[in-house]
Amino acid sequence: MRWPLDRFAFGGDYNPEQWPEDVWAEDIRLMRQAGVSMVSVGIFSWAEVEPRPNEFDFGWFDRVMDNLANADIAACLATMTASPPPWLARLHPETLPQKADGTRLWPGARQAYCPSSPIYRDHAARLVDQVASRYHDHPALALWHINNEYGCHTRACYCDVSAEDFRGWLENRYQDITTLNEAWSTKFWSQRYDSFEEILPPRSAPTFANPTQQLDFARFSSDALLECFKREKEVIRRHSDAPVTTNHVPLAKTLDLYAWGKEVDVVSYDSYPDPFDKKAHILAGLSYDVIRSTRNGQPWMLMEQAPSAVNWRECNAVKAPGQMRLWSWQAIAHGADAVLYFQWRQSQGGAEKFHSGMVPHAGPDSRTFREVAALGAELQQYSEILGTQPDNEVALILDWDSWWALELDSHPSTALTQTGALLSHYTPLFEANIGCDVVHPDADLSKYKLVVVPNLYLVKDAANLTNYVRSGGHLLMSFFSGIVDGNDRVHLGGYPAPFREMLGIKIPEFRPLQDEITVEVLGSAATGTLWSEEIEPETAAVKGSFDFGPALTRNEFGSGVAWYLGTRLDEEAMRSLMNEVTAGAAVSPVLSGLPEGVQATRRGDFVILLNHTTNEVEVRKA
Amino acid sequence: MRWPLDRFAFGGDYNPEQWPEDVWAEDIRLMRQAGVSMVSVGIFSWAEVEPRPNEFDFGWFDRVMDNLANADIAACLATMTASPPPWLARLHPETLPQKADGTRLWPGARQAYCPSSPIYRDHAARLVDQVASRYHDHPALALWHINNEYGCHTRACYCDVSAEDFRGWLENRYQDITTLNEAWSTKFWSQRYDSFEEILPPRSAPTFANPTQQLDFARFSSDALLECFKREKEVIRRHSDAPVTTNHVPLAKTLDLYAWGKEVDVVSYDSYPDPFDKKAHILAGLSYDVIRSTRNGQPWMLMEQAPSAVNWRECNAVKAPGQMRLWSWQAIAHGADAVLYFQWRQSQGGAEKFHSGMVPHAGPDSRTFREVAALGAELQQYSEILGTQPDNEVALILDWDSWWALELDSHPSTALTQTGALLSHYTPLFEANIGCDVVHPDADLSKYKLVVVPNLYLVKDAANLTNYVRSGGHLLMSFFSGIVDGNDRVHLGGYPAPFREMLGIKIPEFRPLQDEITVEVLGSAATGTLWSEEIEPETAAVKGSFDFGPALTRNEFGSGVAWYLGTRLDEEAMRSLMNEVTAGAAVSPVLSGLPEGVQATRRGDFVILLNHTTNEVEVRKA
Amino acid sequence: MRWPLDRFAFGGDYNPEQWPEDVWAEDIRLMRQAGVSMVSVGIFSWAEVEPRPNEFDFGWFDRVMDNLANADIAACLATMTASPPPWLARLHPETLPQKADGTRLWPGARQAYCPSSPIYRDHAARLVDQVASRYHDHPALALWHINNEYGCHTRACYCDVSAEDFRGWLENRYQDITTLNEAWSTKFWSQRYDSFEEILPPRSAPTFANPTQQLDFARFSSDALLECFKREKEVIRRHSDAPVTTNHVPLAKTLDLYAWGKEVDVVSYDSYPDPFDKKAHILAGLSYDVIRSTRNGQPWMLMEQAPSAVNWRECNAVKAPGQMRLWSWQAIAHGADAVLYFQWRQSQGGAEKFHSGMVPHAGPDSRTFREVAALGAELQQYSEILGTQPDNEVALILDWDSWWALELDSHPSTALTQTGALLSHYTPLFEANIGCDVVHPDADLSKYKLVVVPNLYLVKDAANLTNYVRSGGHLLMSFFSGIVDGNDRVHLGGYPAPFREMLGIKIPEFRPLQDEITVEVLGSAATGTLWSEEIEPETAAVKGSFDFGPALTRNEFGSGVAWYLGTRLDEEAMRSLMNEVTAGAAVSPVLSGLPEGVQATRRGDFVILLNHTTNEVEVRKA
Repeated sequence: MRWPLDRFAFGGDYNPEQWPEDVWAEDIRLMRQAGVSMVSVGIFSWAEVEPRPNEFDFGWFDRVMDNLANADIAACLATMTASPPPWLARLHPETLPQKADGTRLWPGARQAYCPSSPIYRDHAARLVDQVASRYHDHPALALWHINNEYGCHTRACYCDVSAEDFRGWLENRYQDITTLNEAWSTKFWSQRYDSFEEILPPRSAPTFANPTQQLDFARFSSDALLECFKREKEVIRRHSDAPVTTNHVPLAKTLDLYAWGKEVDVVSYDSYPDPFDKKAHILAGLSYDVIRSTRNGQPWMLMEQAPSAVNWRECNAVKAPGQMRLWSWQAIAHGADAVLYFQWRQSQGGAEKFHSGMVPHAGPDSRTFREVAALGAELQQYSEILGTQPDNEVALILDWDSWWALELDSHPSTALTQTGALLSHYTPLFEANIGCDVVHPDADLSKYKLVVVPNLYLVKDAANLTNYVRSGGHLLMSFFSGIVDGNDRVHLGGYPAPFREMLGIKIPEFRPLQDEITVEVLGSAATGTLWSEEIEPETAAVKGSFDFGPALTRNEFGSGVAWYLGTRLDEEAMRSLMNEVTAGAAVSPVLSGLPEGVQATRRGDFVILLNHTTNEVEVRKA
Repeated sequence: MRWPLDRFAFGGDYNPEQWPEDVWAEDIRLMRQAGVSMVSVGIFSWAEVEPRPNEFDFGWFDRVMDNLANADIAACLATMTASPPPWLARLHPETLPQKADGTRLWPGARQAYCPSSPIYRDHAARLVDQVASRYHDHPALALWHINNEYGCHTRACYCDVSAEDFRGWLENRYQDITTLNEAWSTKFWSQRYDSFEEILPPRSAPTFANPTQQLDFARFSSDALLECFKREKEVIRRHSDAPVTTNHVPLAKTLDLYAWGKEVDVVSYDSYPDPFDKKAHILAGLSYDVIRSTRNGQPWMLMEQAPSAVNWRECNAVKAPGQMRLWSWQAIAHGADAVLYFQWRQSQGGAEKFHSGMVPHAGPDSRTFREVAALGAELQQYSEILGTQPDNEVALILDWDSWWALELDSHPSTALTQTGALLSHYTPLFEANIGCDVVHPDADLSKYKLVVVPNLYLVKDAANLTNYVRSGGHLLMSFFSGIVDGNDRVHLGGYPAPFREMLGIKIPEFRPLQDEITVEVLGSAATGTLWSEEIEPETAAVKGSFDFGPALTRNEFGSGVAWYLGTRLDEEAMRSLMNEVTAGAAVSPVLSGLPEGVQATRRGDFVILLNHTTNEVEVRKA
Repeated sequence: MRWPLDRFAFGGDYNPEQWPEDVWAEDIRLMRQAGVSMVSVGIFSWAEVEPRPNEFDFGWFDRVMDNLANADIAACLATMTASPPPWLARLHPETLPQKADGTRLWPGARQAYCPSSPIYRDHAARLVDQVASRYHDHPALALWHINNEYGCHTRACYCDVSAEDFRGWLENRYQDITTLNEAWSTKFWSQRYDSFEEILPPRSAPTFANPTQQLDFARFSSDALLECFKREKEVIRRHSDAPVTTNHVPLAKTLDLYAWGKEVDVVSYDSYPDPFDKKAHILAGLSYDVIRSTRNGQPWMLMEQAPSAVNWRECNAVKAPGQMRLWSWQAIAHGADAVLYFQWRQSQGGAEKFHSGMVPHAGPDSRTFREVAALGAELQQYSEILGTQPDNEVALILDWDSWWALELDSHPSTALTQTGALLSHYTPLFEANIGCDVVHPDADLSKYKLVVVPNLYLVKDAANLTNYVRSGGHLLMSFFSGIVDGNDRVHLGGYPAPFREMLGIKIPEFRPLQDEITVEVLGSAATGTLWSEEIEPETAAVKGSFDFGPALTRNEFGSGVAWYLGTRLDEEAMRSLMNEVTAGAAVSPVLSGLPEGVQATRRGDFVILLNHTTNEVEVRKA
């Protein structure tokens, strides 16, 4: 078996080591009953297969793999490196990560390793070599699952080992210390470095640490984890050419997923919308569009979702009857070819025992298992969808560099978040059933009718976006975009300097808001929050106003049109604005005239309809 | 003099070292004026009697003891070990405790010692030997007060010395590492230990630490402090057979008081209800019933209460006129034979100078001293009460193991607390003047007409409770009970598996609540908060419902009756339910028909009536 | 050029090292255009002038100084020691400060040095020697700016080096350990020290650390920074007799500004009122009166203010048109002879790039620069004001010792703050246009008609205030005054013992408030918050009452009058009370009958009127 399968990958994390072997037979029986076609195995097996350094025991795991093969269930086989056994920390305490304030993080949970640690990396590589050499031609093997949820808990490490690695990364980036000093603006606050040896991670400091030091440390931390990934992949490739993947946690700021997307063969995602949140499906939709876009629309794997409740929020809601089916289909609607869960059998002990399982504590005679099995059966009828991709007309701009820089401290307002900005612009598109891709600002934009730039604070080079508009594209940009360069140094000359010509405006001053403000937009009264600013139109037409000046402008530039919005509009006003903008760009929805709360997406020739309300609705074919 | 005295023990902590000796004579004069019969002495005298290592100066303390004896005032004599002098930390910094994040706790306050430190324990033992050998036959000596408020501030220590001690404790508990691995579910998240040497306290980790590691560390921490106690007691017993006690802080989760109750001759309690809290007397009543029950109803000592305000809350209320008398009598009503205060004379300096004293800063010509003296006189008329005990028909179940496990992280809802659950069930009993004992789930329940189980998350063995009902007992159990075994591993097969037969129900799924929910109970509309769940009745009758299913059930089992409640009811509904349940169990109040806010308790032949309102009320003898 | 100049010092922090030299010429041109007469230079230049230990490069700085001299712009020349370069931390990590919990504070921001570090002090002294010897006779030099914002971020250090320094400071203060033990009340909680060697800073402890240890550590921390200052001044004095100053952050609790005022030649202040705060000008007025008073009314320097927004609040408001002019004039109205900004040119990079500059990112064609230049021109017409001082009739009492002690933990209420108490009493005086000085309780009070004591918790000697009243002065004192002596030990015998005779009252008990309370004051209903207390009048007349007793008293004592207030009154009641009290003391406002929101102050023969409202108002000369 090899990914992609000829049917939906359906199943979940399978951790048989948590159960006596006499349960395994029932596992296989129930998996077949539930239509399971793939499971993820071995994710937390390190301590069981290598109970002490360099002493391996794969016998039990061979039986697991054989059971799967015999049952025609594919294995998404983990490299087993996600959480080192306690013996590693005992022998090498310097492999434990450290927080910015110096707090050491100890074993007892998971992911207690410094990503830069050569000792951790060597031990991981040795284990991967064992796993890959042993199972590379096992009939169950479908693809390799490298590590697990990189950076979920240990997002960055500030220890001396990481400091050394950070210095090497910086030396590689800047070559000489003068260039770094210039990039980091170290003439401010007497921070000039005389050599790379003086540099440290942005550990606890008396006040705001150097922003570019923080920004580069975010870049480095993503790269340090990516180095771990690449090292494992390299070992795998010595033995196997099966596809590799690794699974990412929801809308994670930690990892630059564009860079990661280049390194995997298929991208995987763990999705945990909160059933208490009435708009959770919109945020989920956004996150699916992000993850799909990191591999240019290629079908992706929903590697984890909860069969019902999770256990790590303060209060953990169960999924209502039908909600798990709906949300599974939503992932498919946004391009997934796999629907997997964490985890197969709900744990009896440990920190996630109250996280739901496909087979819950109550056993298979339960609503959860019945809904899982029903979905498994249902999916078998829809294999035609596999491999199809959406073809969207709208691009939403997202850049991890800009995200990291945007959310640094010492800004005009600390209330701005990248996710908030994205969601504010994504929601009206989602509700209008207009499909979106999420792209890097330097991506090829030629296929898009509309480019939406919610908040692109950091811009290395404005040419790509500017050329897009000049050549006839339509673009909507919101506030606090185009402010700094790649080193977090301000583009001088009136904000947003690199986009001023395209937008036809100049902004001498920001006016962040504590309270909401009244604003007139496209002829209607609305409210703005978070932000306002002084906008001086140069060539742009004013389309909305604060009481003190323009709030929304529209500029014809080259053959295209560039809109600019200087506040966070309320949802209704944002809907009106997006209607106007998409209409002007001749963007068309997948379907129009659908009842409120009904989502429509297109994959190839298929249109998928999802009813996110709790009422029945009727939709007739036009 | 020996405890128990032939009169009420009345007095307080007496710290004459804080004052020049010429104040001591006035102390004795005022004590006699106030009816003081007992004082606690020496609690924080270590640094004064051992100013440098192994150099002792007891001369001044001899004079204190002699003064007391001459005035016929009994001494509750402390072992003086509660707070080591600064020289210990200077000579042995490794005796300082450490928090989970590695923060060292330094001298400057009190209790700055690692409970597992052999150095601290040895120094303490040497001091106790000095004290006990010197005063064992002093005429003032009534009983020994070992240490003080164990675990009040330093509840657990995570240092390397504690880690070593924890490993020893674990090795003793589990014998071999395989058993520990099974108990701790270490196959989850690759946590398998290869030897005891690898184990650490649950220090700061990247995410939730292993729950059983946390649970065992709570057990160990209680035991480590108990070891300190036992070591001191053992030294005392070489010299004296006078009774020993130690005083506990209010409703402390830290110490398993059942285990501690076995080691003392009389149990002591420090009670600090907040006068700003209109229901403080109910929480106080609960805590008194807990403390009394740890010695099976034997009269206990109210070792500390505030004459008026305390100083350690954010805002510290004074007691209204009469409130101190009322609350002192409440302790007696719940079984106390001693009414003592912290402290005799309000300190002039230090961290508790704004904690009220029996002799306040303003001197004896003050409301506080007058109320103290009036109570001292009053108590002299009631010596007949001494030694009597209540005889209650209702048992409330509390188990520290379950408390510790219940409040661990990664649960369906983090809003559940053991105290909240107890109080919700205790309040209607208190208001109905139905006396309660608080008992361990494995205690002899045969004398009780009703057993109330507010929230028994962890159950090692369900047989005792089940047999109680089977043999004709009545029982009321609330949600999230019977979930895990002694190792925090789920009892499989539908919650609450060990009680399913007794309750006649099965619960496949919890539904914790963010907001309140409407629920119908015994025919009336009510509200539920915190929790709901899917309850499938098997043999039980439904007595209340959520809109989606049963909320309250009643099951006849054997010769008895078992009620089950799946939410936290509002106070009025809880009152109705408890009326129904107690009526069904033929439980009778101490007195019925009393005005609202009037409490009645029974001790032997005495009925004590307390008016907790601010109005005068009239109660006529029936 | 020498301070004081013959014109207003107008300008700001000038950091040319952040810009290429070709920008410098434009700087000078724009400075002249804006009427700039003085700039602060070199504040963060250490790393640029000493790029590696003992290797100096002043060439570029020579050019900066020459440019200024050539343009007739005075230099407020910094000693450049405010933030050591990274090489210092690398060579000497023990110079890095440490928090109470042991967290090390690392380079990357600013002020990352332990104030007690002899290594830091030596390096600083060597640098100052270089700077002072090089520029002592430079024609641009007007005065020396020693360091910068001492204690702004690193307010205290708890490291071993600081501990050693603290012990030396204590030994100097107390001479012998017995005296310290008495002062620190160490017989409480077994804290007796056997030698100074045992003493540590008040590091993290299991509970409240010894209050006098905390108080002495606050005193020591102010002194440790003052030692840094004195060391630099001493080096300067070897080369130059030009005046010295250092700039203080707003209403800083950290530094005893009376002690600092004695060491500078002119006092400087950094003022950052929040434009979102509608009463920011009142708090600013108070802070200006504080700073002026630390040099007995001598004209002071507004060393920093924001041209518009700052960047370090959570949400940073811009100044409305005209607001910067208004607030600049307010500083002059309260005695400033300098109006300077942080900073000349808004930074392109670094942690303060979003802090406004006189020349903003948008360049000189901007509202901010235009308003700056207009003010620069305007001030040139008002040189006659320079050197004049106010002559106020009211003194507000403030003592840093008392401030430190007041805000320690373990008090009746933690909601009391010194600033809150000051502001509550200052506001009605400000609104009535009655000028205030802020004075130490032991200052000469003979010139004042009224002394206001908002909250003088710690009183070493009550004689000065008592004699003031006895000799005919009027005084208003509010609650929780006169409670402890200089060692935070309670004055016994009924609060406030040292003032009881003067006030004619006795207070046996405090009653801090959680909620507001109704109180009748001078015949009207009002509300009290934070505090109430039992006041027993002895010779005083009752002028206001809680429902349980007196709230406000007035006592004729000697030839004077002493009022006492036992709660925090609402603003309107406080206004009535202050009217009554000032009328009784025959205090007169600068002007009366002004429209609401119009402030009037007097400096010498000048009356300055400021309209703090957004409306136009008309004021006619009487």
